[in-house]
Amino acid sequence: MKKPIYLDYASTTPTDPLVVQAMTPFFFESFGNASSPHSIGQKARKALEDSRAVLANFIGAKPSEIVFTSGASEGNNQAILTLALSLFGKGRHVIISAIEHHSVLECAKRLGKLGFQVDLVKPQPDGIVDSASMIQLIREDTILIALHHANNEIGVIQPVEEIGVVARQKGICFLVDATQTVGHIPVDVKKISCDLLSLSAHKFYGPQGVGALYAREGIHLEPRLYGGDQETGRRAGTQNLPGIVGLGQAIELCQKKMEKEAREQAALRDYMIEFVLTNIKGSSLNGHRQMRLPNNAHFSFEKINGEELVTALDMAGIAISQGSACKWGTLEPSHALKALGLSDELALGSLRVSIGRWTSKEDVDCFLEQLKSVIEKLRK
Amino acid sequence: MKKPIYLDYASTTPTDPLVVQAMTPFFFESFGNASSPHSIGQKARKALEDSRAVLANFIGAKPSEIVFTSGASEGNNQAILTLALSLFGKGRHVIISAIEHHSVLECAKRLGKLGFQVDLVKPQPDGIVDSASMIQLIREDTILIALHHANNEIGVIQPVEEIGVVARQKGICFLVDATQTVGHIPVDVKKISCDLLSLSAHKFYGPQGVGALYAREGIHLEPRLYGGDQETGRRAGTQNLPGIVGLGQAIELCQKKMEKEAREQAALRDYMIEFVLTNIKGSSLNGHRQMRLPNNAHFSFEKINGEELVTALDMAGIAISQGSACKWGTLEPSHALKALGLSDELALGSLRVSIGRWTSKEDVDCFLEQLKSVIEKLRK
Repeated sequence: MKKPIYLDYASTTPTDPLVVQAMTPFFFESFGNASSPHSIGQKARKALEDSRAVLANFIGAKPSEIVFTSGASEGNNQAILTLALSLFGKGRHVIISAIEHHSVLECAKRLGKLGFQVDLVKPQPDGIVDSASMIQLIREDTILIALHHANNEIGVIQPVEEIGVVARQKGICFLVDATQTVGHIPVDVKKISCDLLSLSAHKFYGPQGVGALYAREGIHLEPRLYGGDQETGRRAGTQNLPGIVGLGQAIELCQKKMEKEAREQAALRDYMIEFVLTNIKGSSLNGHRQMRLPNNAHFSFEKINGEELVTALDMAGIAISQGSACKWGTLEPSHALKALGLSDELALGSLRVSIGRWTSKEDVDCFLEQLKSVIEKLRK
Repeated sequence: MKKPIYLDYASTTPTDPLVVQAMTPFFFESFGNASSPHSIGQKARKALEDSRAVLANFIGAKPSEIVFTSGASEGNNQAILTLALSLFGKGRHVIISAIEHHSVLECAKRLGKLGFQVDLVKPQPDGIVDSASMIQLIREDTILIALHHANNEIGVIQPVEEIGVVARQKGICFLVDATQTVGHIPVDVKKISCDLLSLSAHKFYGPQGVGALYAREGIHLEPRLYGGDQETGRRAGTQNLPGIVGLGQAIELCQKKMEKEAREQAALRDYMIEFVLTNIKGSSLNGHRQMRLPNNAHFSFEKINGEELVTALDMAGIAISQGSACKWGTLEPSHALKALGLSDELALGSLRVSIGRWTSKEDVDCFLEQLKSVIEKLRK
């Protein structure tokens, strides 16, 4: 059977073979516990610190500001639950966009139960969260603002810098979930003026199960996972050496390839959008036309059930999804699409196309052809 | 330079090349997000559920009772903090052995701050926690008991079954940290009668960064990491597919090899203990002579600084440590050794020898020769 065409890079990327190659020696030949005192441990520690330096440099941070985690969900949990709880005495008001990832929203819900007041800010119909609306909610007792860098479903890029400058000025902690942007568009913690930034390696051709949380110097970050002194006391548990080495290698590859890939993917994305809106009746693009990730196009189709569409495309050899993998199977329309103001019909009739390093023009053409024909069949 | 002889398997094991081989296709060829709806996601889910079934079968559990985590530290955090907090209304008393891993002790300390009363039970001088002493501390409001299966420093195996039967009878939640035993000696959650059991793949020749928490059916386990619906709502975050496949493969290898390895390692262990006690003056074995892990020997040496000993052995080509890697560099004597009643001198003059799958008789002989000569030099 022919290998499916993969158009679900936003859900997880394949790990680049060069990343796997870089990781491989650290399983057996150069394995080690980075906290062990002997030379094998020291070598493990060296490899780990090299990766930390590579990542720090890539996002404009200091190595000491990087905490390795098991992924962005863990980072968001630590950033919100641990940090907000430690600031409980200072204030109990939190501002969060309504279209954050579930790991942010669920933590915010938890804060609500623990006595915090949480203001959710809806995006405009184009998916952009208006920074002025967010800023005007700031109160004396606001301790945390969270706005993701780009949305995981509709791919819209948010005006994080506009929030960052105000948050910094007012001394409010600012969390940016950059899971969808690191390795795809430039991310600079200094330009954003954020205090916390979360990321996952498996979204930029690194391995699953590893990520990092940037915590600005001066931010007192309690661990979410207690135990050993790893990560300077900010995250317990034996460090995932091959995973962290893989993350570093993935960053090095992005450093070389990102600019060209973003340009090429944006061209393919625009080509897809143009084709769909022109050739498929009752189709619409969700999210801002320009302010979106180079690799994301998100559509709604009238009179189409998105789950049926995904299944039919899967049978036609296209691996694609409606949106977030984290909440698949719930049958409910996506919270992000509802927040845009979409009807249930259009929210449920949606499709996220996310392309990546190994997507060719031929893949896209094959997909577009299938999409058109499948939609016609489903509507009959 | 010759490769060092590795005698620190209790800290982390190399990942078995067969495990790496099993993992490799899941990075690029058969990669996928196990929560994605399409066939690639379904295949990922199938591989993940296969690993879950293998692990469940190995420890006498049902697949639905297994929650994949990033490792035992995370599992212990979830078991203690999440569970105890959810039982706050039922009772606020917790019983824990004084020689638990730091991830258990630190969580217990945290519980103490949150209004729980925590009783720490010291072991006997032979390292065994007397089950009667633990049981007699049980009160009406006791909601959790934690006792590890074997200690990570001195390797003593604990009478977990004796605690299990009483805890089950009284309806008290019982957590067993089995990080040191899974894959080394038989572990059966039914025989132990535990409600929760934590483990880490990198202690039994699987990869770092992945582990599991067994939670008995009927135990309501809230997530420690909130977000997506992964792991039936008990642990958010994209599942680490290659890591979980590696864990499963590591279990399959242990299933085949454990009995023979345990027998051979126990023979080498006894040979080492005999040699050291006979040939090195002022040496003593820490922990019970028989009730210990087949791969662990833990010594104290009079008039020896353990850090100097580890460094000197490292220079002689032996990678070994004093004890837990998680607290290395603190200069304080180990909490476990202090709990045994050792003097500061003997606690600081200690050495943990932990052998494994690739340790030969020649390695052990070379180590013993070096140990004798290094100790003589250091004492001059």
